[in-house]
Amino acid sequence: MAVGIEPAKQLLPVPGIKLGVCKAGIRVANRQDLVVMELAEGCQTAAVFTQNKFCAAPVTIAKRHLAHQAPRYLLINTGNANAGTGEQGIRDTLRCCEAIAALTNAEISQILPFSTGVIGEPLPVSKIVQGLPAAIQDLDEAHWNTAASGIMTTDTIPKGISKLVTVQGVPITITGISKGAGMIRPNMATMLAYVGTDAPLSPAVLQQLLERVVERSFNRITVDSDTSTNDAALLIASHRADLAPLEDLSDPAWQDFITAVQDLFLFLAQAIVRDAEGASKFVEVKVENAATVNDALEVAYTVAHSPLVKTALFASDPNWGRILAAVGRARVERLNVDNIAIWLNDVAIVSQGGRDENYQEAAGQAEMDKDELVIRIDLGQGDVSESVWTSDLSHDYVRINAEYRT
Amino acid sequence: MAVGIEPAKQLLPVPGIKLGVCKAGIRVANRQDLVVMELAEGCQTAAVFTQNKFCAAPVTIAKRHLAHQAPRYLLINTGNANAGTGEQGIRDTLRCCEAIAALTNAEISQILPFSTGVIGEPLPVSKIVQGLPAAIQDLDEAHWNTAASGIMTTDTIPKGISKLVTVQGVPITITGISKGAGMIRPNMATMLAYVGTDAPLSPAVLQQLLERVVERSFNRITVDSDTSTNDAALLIASHRADLAPLEDLSDPAWQDFITAVQDLFLFLAQAIVRDAEGASKFVEVKVENAATVNDALEVAYTVAHSPLVKTALFASDPNWGRILAAVGRARVERLNVDNIAIWLNDVAIVSQGGRDENYQEAAGQAEMDKDELVIRIDLGQGDVSESVWTSDLSHDYVRINAEYRT
Repeated sequence: MAVGIEPAKQLLPVPGIKLGVCKAGIRVANRQDLVVMELAEGCQTAAVFTQNKFCAAPVTIAKRHLAHQAPRYLLINTGNANAGTGEQGIRDTLRCCEAIAALTNAEISQILPFSTGVIGEPLPVSKIVQGLPAAIQDLDEAHWNTAASGIMTTDTIPKGISKLVTVQGVPITITGISKGAGMIRPNMATMLAYVGTDAPLSPAVLQQLLERVVERSFNRITVDSDTSTNDAALLIASHRADLAPLEDLSDPAWQDFITAVQDLFLFLAQAIVRDAEGASKFVEVKVENAATVNDALEVAYTVAHSPLVKTALFASDPNWGRILAAVGRARVERLNVDNIAIWLNDVAIVSQGGRDENYQEAAGQAEMDKDELVIRIDLGQGDVSESVWTSDLSHDYVRINAEYRT
Repeated sequence: MAVGIEPAKQLLPVPGIKLGVCKAGIRVANRQDLVVMELAEGCQTAAVFTQNKFCAAPVTIAKRHLAHQAPRYLLINTGNANAGTGEQGIRDTLRCCEAIAALTNAEISQILPFSTGVIGEPLPVSKIVQGLPAAIQDLDEAHWNTAASGIMTTDTIPKGISKLVTVQGVPITITGISKGAGMIRPNMATMLAYVGTDAPLSPAVLQQLLERVVERSFNRITVDSDTSTNDAALLIASHRADLAPLEDLSDPAWQDFITAVQDLFLFLAQAIVRDAEGASKFVEVKVENAATVNDALEVAYTVAHSPLVKTALFASDPNWGRILAAVGRARVERLNVDNIAIWLNDVAIVSQGGRDENYQEAAGQAEMDKDELVIRIDLGQGDVSESVWTSDLSHDYVRINAEYRT
């Protein structure tokens, strides 16, 4: 089902970061559903988390532990989100952290927990605790690919990418994995994503860099407008590369690295949309010449969330009136429809607020038949451009989400 | 398909208002698709229209004519929305108004045009003009029922209701019809709705009353969050009842009448949701104890629009974690999740921000299996309550909207 993307190829190890996976039987038997990541002494970790006010117990604990000290272990389970579980959820998460601390001689506050899956059901702590020794036994710097599989839920393919860049003559590796296919509209954070690099990045720079690249990657995708309770994105710097730490993101010697990190985050974010539940199309909604970033994003998300636009995309129907109607209902006060133009890829469909006089249905149909599409909307008001990426609304989306718990 | 509602029963005539219908073949052959309403001299008409900035050509013209003088004829076509059609759309609408004016000796500005159907295609003016004589020939005070059928698009049943009330001993009739099933999230206006009464209501009072009752009826429903380009709701007072005109909505003698109008509008609005595209459930999302009306509506609409909540409703799956996740992502800054409680009908599912300690899945399942459901959310912050009404997201919704133009 995934649009224009292959399962992750062989991912490059990042010195200082090991990964281990096991089958703990959390929701179904015989599935890799528990991942441990071991971060060597000296690793720095930055994270951003969901802004959903019902954030999950592991999000609460991960934030608390991260504020306390640098993490040494990440623990990720699928099959259960441990969200909406109240005080019991907090206790369950801490019991999992205790178990891994006991096995590794780490402190409890050096463990960052993550969960993804069904909301509102108690976490099966004993299954996780029983699975931990096997996952720890499996720890290896070469295991990014199995970890990419181990964090999947309704994903159809494991998502990951590596980049090699050179900073001042020193080779630097960046490897990242992500998961997510539904309940996707990250807000100031993301679905689960883990990115490691051996670059030396000071804690302040690491957090700055993460927030910058997330803003233009995970914070620009939507499948169904539903922001998860469990989103988290991490950037881990192992400091193993033989370089002085980066202290300032504007350092010219590091710009290739920063671009590579941005590209890698965008790839991982788009990979989630390409593998969206039931997706048959990968669509960029690009708003140009808006007065403000907020105006551009409001219009882009209104189009990207419209069930009528999304079902037309599924049907490959160039029913562009639905795009126009969605633009018109966006919560942007100053919109002047007479200035608005809309394209499907490079085919002009709307000019000066009405059907473009040269538009031919056959031309629109030819673009709509493609798997990948850009809906470009020129508001004619300013000079701000923003893009969001989304998928269509298909029978399979309804089937997957109607049958999710069965 | 419609949930808990029958096709309109015999509707009561309103003295002073005649309706005529014909088959003009606008989009498909042999379907009643053109309705004319004739308002006798002395009728007062109030209207509210869509806030979509891409409002259709007939909306632009109807607003202009209404500002000019009291209308004598309403012209309603289905099969084509005449929206996104630019200057040509304006000219086409005016040509239809000219044709009816010529046939009836009315002035052009006494005609109010309305269109509903596909957006972005040219209005087939000649078919409409050719159909007009038959529709005018058909004019009769008894034809509310055929008019209710004549304004349908993807609706599966004609929607209408009559009420008889007594004001100061004088019997008053109120009859209304509505249409709509998709692209439903009215904003300060509605889908097409026409309500007539023989009560004498001054123009100012008529508009006040319409805006009041629309706010708590059509402005509280959503099927798919998509606000149409063509929404319009009208309240027509023929002044035929032998009473002094109502000058003040607070007049105690008229409170039963005002309540009846509010009830009638709510019935027509809910009828649209009960007949929503592909709907198998009729759901009230009721938010209680909010700090403000805006907070309450933001939470209610976020839940009502969530594709994950809507697919769970379709599946009759008490996957209440999705409701909780939607509440948590609502754009309400001051939400304190520890105060929040959620019920399915009278079954408590969330208390103090987490799973209610007495909640049993079987109890939730029993409520979810019902066709009609109240999702009640207590924010524990203030004393404002608001409800919105919505439907589920089914395979048929996707099918209907993927196949709409085929």
